[in-house]
Amino acid sequence: MGGDHAPRVEVEGAILAVRELGVRVLLVGQEAAVRAELAKHKVRDLPIDVVNAADVITMTDSPSQAFRRKKESSLHVAARLVRDGQADALVSAGNTGAAMTVARFVIGTLPSVDRPALAAAFPNMKEKISVILDVGANVDSKPAHLEQFAVMGEIYYRAIWGVKRPRVAVLSIGEEEAKGNELTKEASARLKQLPLNFVGNVEGRDVFRGNVDVVVCDGFIGNIALKLSEGLVEHIGGMLKKAIKSSLTSQIGYALSKRAFDDFRKRTDYSETGGAPLLGVRGITVIGHGRSNPNAIKNAIRVASELCRARVNEKIEQELSSAAAVPARG
Amino acid sequence: MGGDHAPRVEVEGAILAVRELGVRVLLVGQEAAVRAELAKHKVRDLPIDVVNAADVITMTDSPSQAFRRKKESSLHVAARLVRDGQADALVSAGNTGAAMTVARFVIGTLPSVDRPALAAAFPNMKEKISVILDVGANVDSKPAHLEQFAVMGEIYYRAIWGVKRPRVAVLSIGEEEAKGNELTKEASARLKQLPLNFVGNVEGRDVFRGNVDVVVCDGFIGNIALKLSEGLVEHIGGMLKKAIKSSLTSQIGYALSKRAFDDFRKRTDYSETGGAPLLGVRGITVIGHGRSNPNAIKNAIRVASELCRARVNEKIEQELSSAAAVPARG
Repeated sequence: MGGDHAPRVEVEGAILAVRELGVRVLLVGQEAAVRAELAKHKVRDLPIDVVNAADVITMTDSPSQAFRRKKESSLHVAARLVRDGQADALVSAGNTGAAMTVARFVIGTLPSVDRPALAAAFPNMKEKISVILDVGANVDSKPAHLEQFAVMGEIYYRAIWGVKRPRVAVLSIGEEEAKGNELTKEASARLKQLPLNFVGNVEGRDVFRGNVDVVVCDGFIGNIALKLSEGLVEHIGGMLKKAIKSSLTSQIGYALSKRAFDDFRKRTDYSETGGAPLLGVRGITVIGHGRSNPNAIKNAIRVASELCRARVNEKIEQELSSAAAVPARG
Repeated sequence: MGGDHAPRVEVEGAILAVRELGVRVLLVGQEAAVRAELAKHKVRDLPIDVVNAADVITMTDSPSQAFRRKKESSLHVAARLVRDGQADALVSAGNTGAAMTVARFVIGTLPSVDRPALAAAFPNMKEKISVILDVGANVDSKPAHLEQFAVMGEIYYRAIWGVKRPRVAVLSIGEEEAKGNELTKEASARLKQLPLNFVGNVEGRDVFRGNVDVVVCDGFIGNIALKLSEGLVEHIGGMLKKAIKSSLTSQIGYALSKRAFDDFRKRTDYSETGGAPLLGVRGITVIGHGRSNPNAIKNAIRVASELCRARVNEKIEQELSSAAAVPARG
C-alpha cells in the first residue's frame, strides 16, 4: 500500500509475475482498494489472493513510528505471513526504512547475522551488474559487519547472476592496502581470511567499470553512493533533454536517435534490476523503489522467487555459522 | 611535470592564462623540456618564466615517498616558491596525493586549520555549482574538522561564485536530524552554532539537484562520491555512444544532435570547472585532474588567481580564529 502508485502498480506487477513466472501471490493491503484494482483485470483463474491490512504506512512516516504504531499495515501483515510460514517472501515498494525495520524485527534476523544489509544492483559498462551492500540498513558498521555483508552478497550474486566465483571487494579510496579508513583496512584484513574471491579495494569508479561483482561498504556510504548515482542519472537525463530541445536540428536528431535514447534510459533504470533484497532476514525480503512501475514490481517478485529457489538464506546461515570459527564480532 | 600530457598541456594552459587573465606564470619543471614546449609558441613578450626542477613525480609514486625522496620535483620547487613568497599560488595537474602532501608539509597549514580539505565543484541541474569538501585529503575526520571544512568551503564559494550567503549542508542519508552517523550528527550540531547559512543534512541526490551550495563530508566519503560520479559519467557517455553506433538511423540522428551531445559533454566535464583547491594551506593551492587539457589548466590558474585576489586565506584564518572561542577540537 505504500508505493507512490499503490495499489495499482503492485496489482499489475503481481499479475505480470503470476503469468510470467509461475509464482503464487498474496496481495496484502486494504482489501476493498486491492479488489477494485484486481477487478480491472481478468484474474479469475490466477493464483492471486488478497489478505486484508487496515493500516497504511506513508513515505513520510518514520520507520520506528510506523513499526510501533501501525501494526495492521500491509508491511506488518505480510511480515507476519512470512514469519509464520504462510508466505516465502515479502516484496514491498513502500517506505524503505519502514520495510527494513518491520522485516528485521517482525520476521527476525538469521541466527548468525548481526545486521541485515540492503543490496543494490548497479548496471555497469560490461553490461553486467555490480552489487553494492549495504546501501542503507546500517550506519557506523564494524569490520565484522562488512565481513558478513561480503558473505551474504557473494551468495546473492551467485544465486541471481549465476557466477560461480563472484569477485568481492571493499569500497575504498584507492587500490593500495594502505589507503582507506580504519574500517576498510580492518575489513580487508578479515576478508582475506575468508574462502571468497576477494580482489581487494576498489574505488568509486570501479563500480561502473565492471571489474568487480560484489562491493561491500558501510550503509552510510552505500546509501550516499546509491542516491548520488540516482541523482546524477536524473541530472544527465535532464541535461540531454534540455540540450536537445534547444535546437531544431537536434530535435530531428532526437527523433532519429530515439531508439538509442530509449535503450540508454532502460539501462540506467535501476527498477529494471528488480529491487534490493534485505539480506540476512529470516525470510526473503525484497524492497523496490517507491516509484516502481508494474515491470519493476514483477522483477522484484522474480528476484524474491529466485532467492527462495536458490535457498539463499540456508546458504548464508551455513557459511556464516561455519565462519564463526574465525572470531567475527567486533 | 606530473600530468598525463606534461609539460605540453601545462605550457599551453599557462599561455592561455597569461593571455586571457593577465596573470604572471612561473613554469616549474625540467627546464629543457619546458623550454622546448615554449619554443613552439610566440611567447617572447609574455610574462612567463621557467624555474628548473630536476625530479619528476609520477602518478604511481606514493605521496609519502614522493614527498620524502623527490625534493627537487616540480611540486617541491613550486611549493617552496609559494612558501618563500616568490609566488602567490601553486597549480598542479600531477599526482593528487603527492600535491596534497607537499603543499601541506612544505607550505604548511594556516594556524587555525587542523587539516586542509580538497574542494571539488560539481555542476548541478540549476546550471550552478555545488562544492563538496573534503574529497580526498582526510579520512576518519572528526566533527571539528567538518566544521572547519564548512567555514573554508563557504568562503571559497563566496569568492569564486559571488554568492553572498551560500547554503551549507552536511552530506548524510536523510534530511531528518536523527538520520546519519555519529560524525554527521555531531557535525550538524556544531554547524548550527556557526554564523553560516546552514541548511541541515542533504542526501546524495541533492548534490545534483542544486538545492545546496557547499556540502561537507569526511574525505573518504567525498572521494568515493567524486570517483563514483566520474565513473558514472564515463559509463553513461559510453552507453550513449554504443547505443548510437548500433543503428544507422541513430547514426544520422547522432550527426544531427551532435551539438546537443557536445553541450552535454562539456557540462559533465569536471575539468571545465577549474581544478580543486586544497583549502587551509598557507598559500593558495589548486590541483587539477591528471587528464587536464590546456583549457582545464587555464581554468585552474584562473581559480588560483581569484582565490588570491579574494584574500581567501586571510578570511579563513580570521573566521576560524574567531570561531575558536567555541571549543573546536575533538
